[in-house]
Formats: sequence, structure tokens, C-alpha cells
Amino acid sequence: MTTENNNKKKTLRVGMIGYKFMGKAHSNAYRAMPMFFSDAPLQPEMAVLCGRNAAGAEEARVQFGWQELETDWRQVVARDDIDLIDINTPSDAHLEIAVEAARSGKHILCEKPLALTLADSRTMLRAAEEAGVKHMTGFNYRFSPAVKLAKKLVEEGRLGKVHHFRARFLQDWLVDPEFPLVWRLKKEIAGSGAQSDLGAHLVDLARYLVGEFEEVIGMTETFVKERPLPSEEGGQSGKDGTDQVQRGPVTVDDAAVFMARFVDGALGSFEASRSAPGHRSTNAFEINGSKGSLRFDFERMNELEVYFTDDAEDVQGFRRVLCTDEAHAYSEAWWPPGHTIGFEHTFTHEVLEFISAIAEDRQPSPSFVDGVKCQEVLEAVERSIEERRWVNLSEMAESGS
Amino acid sequence: MTTENNNKKKTLRVGMIGYKFMGKAHSNAYRAMPMFFSDAPLQPEMAVLCGRNAAGAEEARVQFGWQELETDWRQVVARDDIDLIDINTPSDAHLEIAVEAARSGKHILCEKPLALTLADSRTMLRAAEEAGVKHMTGFNYRFSPAVKLAKKLVEEGRLGKVHHFRARFLQDWLVDPEFPLVWRLKKEIAGSGAQSDLGAHLVDLARYLVGEFEEVIGMTETFVKERPLPSEEGGQSGKDGTDQVQRGPVTVDDAAVFMARFVDGALGSFEASRSAPGHRSTNAFEINGSKGSLRFDFERMNELEVYFTDDAEDVQGFRRVLCTDEAHAYSEAWWPPGHTIGFEHTFTHEVLEFISAIAEDRQPSPSFVDGVKCQEVLEAVERSIEERRWVNLSEMAESGS
Amino acid sequence: MTTENNNKKKTLRVGMIGYKFMGKAHSNAYRAMPMFFSDAPLQPEMAVLCGRNAAGAEEARVQFGWQELETDWRQVVARDDIDLIDINTPSDAHLEIAVEAARSGKHILCEKPLALTLADSRTMLRAAEEAGVKHMTGFNYRFSPAVKLAKKLVEEGRLGKVHHFRARFLQDWLVDPEFPLVWRLKKEIAGSGAQSDLGAHLVDLARYLVGEFEEVIGMTETFVKERPLPSEEGGQSGKDGTDQVQRGPVTVDDAAVFMARFVDGALGSFEASRSAPGHRSTNAFEINGSKGSLRFDFERMNELEVYFTDDAEDVQGFRRVLCTDEAHAYSEAWWPPGHTIGFEHTFTHEVLEFISAIAEDRQPSPSFVDGVKCQEVLEAVERSIEERRWVNLSEMAESGS
Amino acid sequence: MTTENNNKKKTLRVGMIGYKFMGKAHSNAYRAMPMFFSDAPLQPEMAVLCGRNAAGAEEARVQFGWQELETDWRQVVARDDIDLIDINTPSDAHLEIAVEAARSGKHILCEKPLALTLADSRTMLRAAEEAGVKHMTGFNYRFSPAVKLAKKLVEEGRLGKVHHFRARFLQDWLVDPEFPLVWRLKKEIAGSGAQSDLGAHLVDLARYLVGEFEEVIGMTETFVKERPLPSEEGGQSGKDGTDQVQRGPVTVDDAAVFMARFVDGALGSFEASRSAPGHRSTNAFEINGSKGSLRFDFERMNELEVYFTDDAEDVQGFRRVLCTDEAHAYSEAWWPPGHTIGFEHTFTHEVLEFISAIAEDRQPSPSFVDGVKCQEVLEAVERSIEERRWVNLSEMAESGS
Repeated sequence: MTTENNNKKKTLRVGMIGYKFMGKAHSNAYRAMPMFFSDAPLQPEMAVLCGRNAAGAEEARVQFGWQELETDWRQVVARDDIDLIDINTPSDAHLEIAVEAARSGKHILCEKPLALTLADSRTMLRAAEEAGVKHMTGFNYRFSPAVKLAKKLVEEGRLGKVHHFRARFLQDWLVDPEFPLVWRLKKEIAGSGAQSDLGAHLVDLARYLVGEFEEVIGMTETFVKERPLPSEEGGQSGKDGTDQVQRGPVTVDDAAVFMARFVDGALGSFEASRSAPGHRSTNAFEINGSKGSLRFDFERMNELEVYFTDDAEDVQGFRRVLCTDEAHAYSEAWWPPGHTIGFEHTFTHEVLEFISAIAEDRQPSPSFVDGVKCQEVLEAVERSIEERRWVNLSEMAESGS
Repeated sequence: MTTENNNKKKTLRVGMIGYKFMGKAHSNAYRAMPMFFSDAPLQPEMAVLCGRNAAGAEEARVQFGWQELETDWRQVVARDDIDLIDINTPSDAHLEIAVEAARSGKHILCEKPLALTLADSRTMLRAAEEAGVKHMTGFNYRFSPAVKLAKKLVEEGRLGKVHHFRARFLQDWLVDPEFPLVWRLKKEIAGSGAQSDLGAHLVDLARYLVGEFEEVIGMTETFVKERPLPSEEGGQSGKDGTDQVQRGPVTVDDAAVFMARFVDGALGSFEASRSAPGHRSTNAFEINGSKGSLRFDFERMNELEVYFTDDAEDVQGFRRVLCTDEAHAYSEAWWPPGHTIGFEHTFTHEVLEFISAIAEDRQPSPSFVDGVKCQEVLEAVERSIEERRWVNLSEMAESGS
Repeated sequence: MTTENNNKKKTLRVGMIGYKFMGKAHSNAYRAMPMFFSDAPLQPEMAVLCGRNAAGAEEARVQFGWQELETDWRQVVARDDIDLIDINTPSDAHLEIAVEAARSGKHILCEKPLALTLADSRTMLRAAEEAGVKHMTGFNYRFSPAVKLAKKLVEEGRLGKVHHFRARFLQDWLVDPEFPLVWRLKKEIAGSGAQSDLGAHLVDLARYLVGEFEEVIGMTETFVKERPLPSEEGGQSGKDGTDQVQRGPVTVDDAAVFMARFVDGALGSFEASRSAPGHRSTNAFEINGSKGSLRFDFERMNELEVYFTDDAEDVQGFRRVLCTDEAHAYSEAWWPPGHTIGFEHTFTHEVLEFISAIAEDRQPSPSFVDGVKCQEVLEAVERSIEERRWVNLSEMAESGS
Repeated sequence: MTTENNNKKKTLRVGMIGYKFMGKAHSNAYRAMPMFFSDAPLQPEMAVLCGRNAAGAEEARVQFGWQELETDWRQVVARDDIDLIDINTPSDAHLEIAVEAARSGKHILCEKPLALTLADSRTMLRAAEEAGVKHMTGFNYRFSPAVKLAKKLVEEGRLGKVHHFRARFLQDWLVDPEFPLVWRLKKEIAGSGAQSDLGAHLVDLARYLVGEFEEVIGMTETFVKERPLPSEEGGQSGKDGTDQVQRGPVTVDDAAVFMARFVDGALGSFEASRSAPGHRSTNAFEINGSKGSLRFDFERMNELEVYFTDDAEDVQGFRRVLCTDEAHAYSEAWWPPGHTIGFEHTFTHEVLEFISAIAEDRQPSPSFVDGVKCQEVLEAVERSIEERRWVNLSEMAESGS
């Protein structure tokens, strides 16, 4: 009564280049899709993971569950048994890989920003179009159920004509002036700072929800202009035997603010910063239209706040909609209404506790003892209701039950 | 350069009984653990899934990724190659399975409530203890990072002596009087209503965070006393050819309220209801101690609100702590600070869109076109900063770049 | 063209007994009413203030604006030119004053709790009824615009049948164990603790919004059982020359929790505490009915949160209603929509600053200089729009304008 | 034992020009100051109210409590017995009155915006300076206790160096395209739209909290370009006997967005709109500094949210500070901690109910009956505690007490 694989479903063999933060997020997505979206017409097969560092990549391969390992992306792109190339490398490698993948007839999923320059991104698009392959840019925030609801409300005209779009993506990891001068803070490697890293998501959300931009103007600032060199560059510990920390110039922006006018007449205001204390990663926006408003904050990704001008006069107000109902995108695949995205993690941590306890030869917490004690309280409450009196837990002692 | 499996890690072979809501949640946990907690000393192996309905269970087996299928739980429990039995059946089957699993020397993870009665749960505990196996009850809410932080703050004495614990678990699916008389609303099958289903979680959280109960008293109510029979029982459509909907009596509670006194002197107040509009699944509690307070609401599972009496006088107030920092439980396994639990789902949905687009032979959204257009805006902003002027997007047209 | 008084309006001459916290709140009400509710058919005249301590009472009389002073309440009650007696004394004096006022044919406004015992309160009611005077108990929270909206929604049936009422009134001034043993903590003087002081408001709100109680059961606790005696009683400083602080027993409750069943079938849960850190004075409640829910927290007195089960499926959620619209009680008397209750205080503080500056012979802040500088920025923005360019504030220098 | 006035305090005689929205707010301030800030070195005396419309102004005089009436502001300004001129007229009259008042040696409080143009505002400032009088511009939001706390935190360096100031003042009364073309929407009368009306407050708060502006750039938009003429201008009802509504052009902005760079290096982003549904009057800002952040929303004027980077690692988060403690500005003058600004209004409305009831010859609600019934519940709870059992309210019936 055993079958190792389900061969009935058509699959798409994926080759993934890069295995760090985004590689982990994408791997998880390929693992989760067959389980939660088993009705999809096609399912991914985690065929090849590619990373230049063989040891690190092999560790990731095992951890993430890819079938094979490659260390040269050209090998992956060239393989006949690969259908889709997923690019998670640093941005400067996107162009070459994507163009080559397109030429090899592979579908391409590429992380944002698509390329270091507009010209490069156009080259990539042209290559994909000429090859006739499918191409996608990784603007993942579009796929929050609450953002999907926002899109639906705008498209159905339930907010009327859009007047305002205001958005901000705020982080705070650069507030500490002793945070070292990592490569992300060097223009020659990273291209730019908060604006392209965080601002790119805001621009995409604006286009997705409001439409095309007409004109823009902005400003940027680097609040901490010099930072300690990382120790490997002779910084921190002080190569020369002195205690002096060596510092180097920060060449990208810490923060950017810009305004925009949209083709359809709306006004946009945008802000991206890595120097906003208290904001670990606040990606938030608000739309005001002629018939209503909505707002979203990724820190509370299950929620969308919505306001309608035609609500009854005495009960007008922003509604906090928990986007876990059947009426909301993706909800059927996950959990019952009210069980927010993330609910499933409690079970993962629970299983971790149990399996760790077994490995360490101890009882986990909560054990059956906790199950019994919970039952004692519940039955004591039940008895208190039946007998209309206070019940002491000592009455539930074993002999008494 | 290929290896199909990672044979280095010691594994624990799991047999799971039941495959509905909880079965899905547990399966996801076993799938996720090796990827996110790869350093655990032992890893689960999804060996056997067991369900009485062969067709339904096989579908689940494939979807969830279990190696083999069984339709008789006794077969699973008897197998020598199984280390851990995971019980997700309706509550009335817990007792027999758990006792048998214990006798077979298997470790046992059993969903809550542990059993239909206190006596049964004690029998289960005794069986597990006599067999010397590890046993766990599925109180999953303990494993939210924010609840772990609450536990830490209480244990470290940072709230002082606990005075108050007030908790409520509110749902609203029974508010509609036309919701049918499903089995969960019949005492003979379900045992009880909101109190054991929702109240059990509150009782466990109270014991976990505050300690043992001293005495209790409660009350319950059934607001809708008769409901339409489900159509298969001659309800809804009207077996007798008339339009008359047949109704039957609801024999469990819709809601329960109870008070408690804890051994250590704290006062507890509890409320469980399935008739509270606007609350899809609000599991929330607050603790007040002699040196501070904290509160939690599972609808915002990433957050814990905390108050300390010794904060500076002019800035005392509840802090909203986003439990995604390195200082918080489990955070290292997931995403960078501020990227809440649930962040990963945006990628799953993104991959779903891409693979669906490929299957349907269309471009996904966002495609490379969106990547290029985002880049146009970013470079226009950049140009506006360099040249200190408004930049129209038409300037970024292909010829102009 | 001068008239000192407006003699056209019929007035009601008030005699107020007591001038502390509640006396101040009531005085302010009598001062505010003619200004904000000038259309009322009758207006109060602040005739006589009465306090036993002549010096303190005279200071209050001047500060609050009462015409005359008395030190014996019997004198006030006996006067023919007084229509209404307002009782703000400690609770133990209510009975005698109210009965006497009734016998003298005066209308009576009495602070809550009405009396120290139920029997006394009944005596007061009987006296007022026999005298045929108007009588009012000071449950002021009923008169929040948001509570009025709650009442309206319940009465109009927009929440359906009420299932749950849960309320709490939490304070934190007794958390510090070194807070002295003031008279409010002695049973012989105060009668009881949090329960009658705070719980009384919750009971009244429950009756106002949900209806009569059927049955109740409760519990109380005193967390800090001994406290330092106030210095005048030989405490704190240590009469005996030693550093030892003398302590005495606290004889009232710090906190109370109780449950109730209402005549109409709703379940009630109540909590009153003076030992809940972070809660300076949280008077909050929630109602769940068969068609919707609402909740209120006096810390945000301008807001009512409301939920309706019949909202469109994809946008169901609690609405935050700011109760300052024309559709809301009292709003016309105050400020335009969105200008919350409290808006007016900014002007009071502004006038304080100006008058203080004049007294101290300095310019206030903000002076005309700030007005000019604000104008500079506004005109610079205007110029930037007209000329589509950045405008430096130096361009707005006096010669340049 | 009577004294009609308190002649001990030195007073300042005020003449107020204008009696509409701002006139009402200022009058209330002069009435409130002696009661709540009785220790101020000088107190205002409400000497003369001035309005061109004699009937309307006389009604306001009586309602607000001014001693005398004038209909020509020049008469007021010329009087020797007036110390302070308070200007609440439409903006176009500010210049002439202020200059004349200065020449007459009067102190001047003038509403914002100070004048229609920068040049005019400078003329006013010069006149006041030459006359050596005290002058104040009515930026009232500075005087919220929470804004005072924000100022204190910035000044004490507790937020470090300021990086970001982002502010918005949003209203929604112009969203309805059928809202008529009132004078405020005509450039020739109002000067400008949202920018000067709402934006002016944001500019002043920015200067108050962050410092001087270096450079700015902005944009504006008028979303509804034509509106129905008010009926008195032949609009609405249709002068010509047809049903056709006549419309005219809106000549001011509905919304404005602008960016700024501050002298000290901070980046500012600003937004003012009267077309943002759901925002009746949202005046909100956030400051991010190198050591912390704070944010304020006038809709919740009692609160300031504050974040510090040096909080313990596991409990970092924005604190919601209720600015009603002794440590906060003005709090001593008002109510005990937790009793927010606005608390006093509940009593005003309560007194209104009582006095209306007397005028209408009915019992008010809540009457003594409610006081007695509340007592019944409290004593029933008390009995339930003593006797450790449920107590039915019928036991508290008169015979049973």
C-alpha cells in the first residue's frame, strides 16, 4: 500500500541560482505549494540548487530539499531537464543569468530589483520576449491577501477615483552609527541604498494599485556619513595594534523621500528609510479615493483597514478587516476564518519541542500531565455549573473523580 | 553530484492518525521542521498516514507528503518501524489509540482535549507513564513567539507577582441562527461546546503563565436553542416535500464564562464563546502583576504588549513589541527582524501565480515588464535628485535612456 | 451698549455641597452649560457653594465662580432661594443631606454611590419620591457621546439580541506597596474598595445598555495586606525616632471580579481593580449581540468600535467611529466633525501662555515671528509649485519678498 | 457671607473681534482659565466682544459671557480700558486690525494664518515690535499635552538627532462633489485651500519640534474642479425654474503635498488634504531621530507614542503614553491620571440632562432609582462573596434587605 511519489500531476522542474535570504524564501514556497495549492494545474519540482560555494550550497540543498547541486549557473541554465530558472543572486548577476536563461528557453523568475540599471532591465525583458518564455519579477508584497483585497476594492470601483497614495517603507538597522560599513553601503557594489531596496516595493505597489506614474521628484540623505570598516578590512579590532577603529565613507543613501503625480491625476508621496527607530520593517500605504479609503501595514499583514463614504451616517469609520475569510484570496488553502497566516508556525514549534524532548530523553512541555490538569479544571468548572457552587480543584483529585 | 537523501541526520519515523484540519497543521509542521530547524538533534520522517476513508486519506497522503498509507490505526500502532504516533482524530478516539500506542512503546503526540473525560485522560497518562514513553498534548498556542516572551517575562520576575489573568477566546460562527445542527452541537458526540473547545486553550495558557488553579465557578448558555437539521438528516431542503425546515435541539453550550482563584493568589476571569460577532477567532489574554503588565491577542500573533512600572515617569505606557528580533524565540529560524511570521506566504502565492501562468500559457503579473517600469520610476527619481527638478516619465522612454 | 446679565433665560439656583474632585467637575459643568447648551429651556445659576472648611471652600468658591459661600449644609438646604442641591461629599454624608433636601422640596443631584448601603439608598429614594422632587444619581459615563451611540444602536436593535456584556474598570495606583494607608483603604470609612468605587460605574453601564441583572456571583482580593501609615498617624517618618515605618492593615478590596446573568439572557463578566499596571483609569466594555458588536474604552472617549454581521462579506470588520459627527449626541454644541472633545483645551493652554507672557514681560511662543516664518514656508512652497523647482528659504528673505 | 467678585487677582481686560468658530474656542479659553489655572499671575477679564452683525454678536456675547458689545472694531481698539485684542475675524481683516491695535499699545493674539501674504504678516510683526506690545499667533496644536511632551523629549535630546519629520493633516468634507462652492473654495476670498488652512499647522509644528526649513518643493491638486453654486447665488434650487444645478469653478487646491529639507539636515514630508475619506480632521506627525521616535495623532490627543533604541532588547516597541500623569504638562490643572482631557464633558452633559428634566417636569435618567438598583447589584455581589454562592437579585427585594 505504498507509493513513494505522486506521478499523476504534471510538474515543472526548477533550477534555483542563489541560496541566501531570498533563496530560502523561494525554497519554502516551492515546498509549500504542492501541499497548500494541490489543485494547481502544474506543480514545481525542486530539481537543482546552484551556488558557487560548494559546501554552503550543499548544506542549503539538504536543508531546503533540492534534489541536486550545481556550482556553475551556466551548467544549470544549459540543462535540458530544467524548465524554470529562479534567480536569487545579488543584483549585479541578474542580467547575465536572465539573458542566458532566456536564450536557453527557460521560464524566469527574477528577484527585484530586476537589474542594476534601467537599460539592463530592458535588455532582460527583450531577451525574454524574443525567446517567448514566461518572465516574472519578485514583487512579493502584491501577494499578501490584504493587498489582494485592496486591489479588488480599487478595481471594482468601491473606492471611487483615487486621489492620494501615500506609502512608506521604514527600517531601523542603520540607526546605530557603529554598524559597520558592509557592502550594501557601498555604491559600487549595491548601486543605491534605501531607495532601490525598499522604495522599489513601494513603486510596484503604487503601480499595481493606482496605475502609471506621470512625473516625480525626490531627495535623499545619508545621515551617518562614515562607518567602521568591517574587521576583515582592518576595521573594528584595529589591524595596527591600536584601539583606533578605522572608518570609511558610506556612499549610498540612508533614506529617500519623493513625490509623484500619477497619470490618472492622483498625488503620491513616498518615503524609504533605514534610519527610522522602532520600525523593523514597516511597509505601509494608504489610498484615499472619492468613495472611500484603505490602508495596509505589513507588520499586520492579515489586516486591511477600509472606509466607505456611503456607510450609515452614525457608524462611519475605518473597518479593520481580518483577511482570513472565505471571501479573501488564498484563504481556502490555509486555515479557517480568524486563523491568521502564521497559525501553522505554532505547530512547527510544537513538533520541534516534542522531537527535541525525545532526543534529549525528557518529557516535553506540555505533556499528558498538562492535558490531564487542563481536564481537571474544565470538569471542575462543569461541576460548578451543575451544582451552582465554587468547586475546589482538590475535589478533582484522583480518588475523587 | 547528486544525493537524494540526507542520511546523516538521525530521524524519528512518525505515524499520524487522522488527516483533517489538525492533520494538515501537523503535516505542515513535520514538513517545515527540517528546513527551518535543521540543527535539531533529531528530525521527523513522514512515514505513515492513517485514515479510515481510503480515498480521502490517499489524497491527503499525496498532498501532505507522507510515504505510506494505512486505513487501520491498529496496523500503524503495531508497526516496528514507527517511533511516534500523532493522534488527530475526533476526541472520542483518543483514549483507545493512545493507550494502545503506549503499550507498543511509541511516543505519543495527542491533540487537545486529551480525552472526553478527566478519568479517560488519566488512563492515558498512566498508560504512557507505565510504558515509559514520551507524551505531549497539543496546546499549540504556547508556541507563539509572543507567548514565549510572555512566559520569559513572568519567569524572570519582570512583572512581579501576578494579580490578574483575564482571557477570552471568542468566535462568531454560531451567531447565525440558520447555521445547521452539525455534530459539534450535539452533546452525545462532541461532549461539550465552546468551553472545552476554546476554553481548554485558555486554561492551558493560564496554567503555563500563572500556575495552578485553586478554585473555579462558571456559567454557560446556549443562545440559539434549536437549529435546522443538516439536509442529510431531512433538514434544510425538507424531506416531506414542504418548504418547512426541520429543526432539532442544540445540546451543547454556545458560550461559557468562569472565574478562578489561582494557588498563588491571582484572580482569573475567563470567557469562551462562539457567538461574538466580529471575532473570527480571538484568543486574547492580559496579565497584571505587581511590577508590570502584558497582553496578547492571537489575531496579532507577532505582537506582545508590555508595560513596566519602573519606566521613566513621563514615558510610561504599554509597548507594542514585535516579536521578530533576535532576542525572541524561534526568530533565527525564520526571517530578519520585522519580517513577521507569515512573510513567507507572499512567496508561496507568488510562485503559485507564476506556475499557474505557465500552465495557462500567459505572462504572470508582475512580469519583467513590471520590473522595467519600476526601474523607470526609480531612475526618474534618481535623475530628479541629480538635476534638482521634476522628471516626467516620458523622459525615461526607451530612446531616452 | 452694556448688559451685565442675561435676564431673559429662566434659571435654576444651585446649592452645591462639597468642593473637591467631584465638586470641581460639577462646577465646570454648571459653567459650561450656558455657553455650549444655551438653547436649554432652563439654565443653572451657581448660587451657593458649601464646605465645612471655610478657607478652603472660599478659595474654591472664587476659583469655580460660585456667588456665595456657606459652611453648614443645613443652611443651604433650608434656603428658599435654592432650587437644586448638588451633593459631592464623601459617601457617608449623602443620606442625611439628601433626605433633608427632599424634605425642603429641593431637586437633588447626588454623586455615586448613592449611599453606603442599599437600605440607605432606598431611604433616599423614598424621601425624594414623597417630596415629589426630581432626583439624579451621578453616573457620568452614560453621558459620553460614544456611550450614547452605543445606547442608540442597542435600542434600535442594530446589534440584535445581546449575548455578552464584558466590562472592566482598571486602575493602578495601589500597585506600589509603599502607597500609604489612606482612609479610602479602611473599611470603616470607605465602605469598600474597587468594587463600589469602580464597579458601580460598570453596573450602571450594564443596566443602561443591557438591562436588569438576574443573578450574580463574585470574588475579591486584597493583594497588599499592610501599608505604611500616613505620617500624621505616626507612620512614614517614624514617630519613635527609629527609621522603622509603621504599617496597618488594609481592610478593603484591591480588586473584584464577578459574573452575572441578565434577565434577558445575556452573560455578564465584570472586573474592577486598582492593581493593574498600565491602566491609569481604563473604563472599557464590549457588547456582543446576535447582529453585531460594539466596544468602548474611556481612554479613547471619542471613539466607539462597531461591527455588523450584515456588512458585505469581504469587508467585515470592527469600525472605529469617531463620535464627533452631526449624527452623534452633543456634537452640535461643541466643535466641527473630527475636532474631538478636548480640542478646546489647546486654546485654554494657549491663552494661559499668552497671559503668563504678558505678566512676565516676555514674548509668548508662538509669537508673530512664528506666524511670519510659517508664512515664509507656505509662500516658498507656493513659489516652488508655480516655478516647478526647489525654493530655498533664503529666497524669502525680506528684501526678496 | 457673600462676595460677588474676586478683586484680589490682577486682571487683563480683553477685547475680542469675531465670534464664530474661533471666537467660541477663544471665549471658552478665557472662561476656563480662571477656574483651572487660578494660580496664573494674571487673569483675563472678558470685557468686550465685537461683531459687525449686532444681533448675532449680542447673542454670542450673552452665550459666551462677555461684559459688553461693540459692532465697530475700531471702537474696541481705541478704548483705554482694554489691554489685549484677540483677532478671530476672517484672514483678510487681520492686517488692519492688528496694525491699529499695535499702534494703540494693545497686546495682540491673532488667529492663524497671520495674514493673507508674507508681506502683510511682516507688516504686522513690525507694527507690534515698534509698539513694544506682546504678540501671539494662534497655533493652538502646540498646546496639546502630548505635543508638549514631544517637544520636551526632543529638547532633552532623548530622540537624538532628528532624521525624519512626516506630517499630514487630512479632512474629508470636500470628497462629495455636490458640496457647494462656498467662499472658502474661491481664491479671491480665501487665498488658498488645504495648504494654508491645514498645512500652516503642520509647518508650525515642524518648526516648533524640528527647527527651521532650508528648502521646499510641492504640488497641489483640485480633484473636483466645478461645484454647485450655493442657492443664494442661483445654484442648487435653480433660479431659472429648471432643475439644472448651476456650477462654478473651484479656484483653490483640494490637496497639497510637499517635501522639505531642514537646516539641521532632517528630511520632511507633508500632506494636507480635504479629500481623504475617513479622516474628519487627522492632524498627525511622526519624528524619527538617531535615538528614538515619536508619533502623534490629534484624533487621540491624549496619547503620544514613543520609542527608544536603548530599551532592553527583548521588549523594544512603541509605547502608548497617556499624557495625563503628573509628569505631563497641564495635568495638575485638570483631572487625576487616566482621566483624559474631555472627562469633564460627561458632567456637562449630565447636568444638561438633569436641568432639562426639571424644565420638562420628568425624572432624569439616571435617577435615584438607578442609584438604588446599582446598589442592589453591588450588595448582591457582596453577599455572594460572603456566602460563596450565586445570589439572585430577587433576594435583594425591599422586604429582603
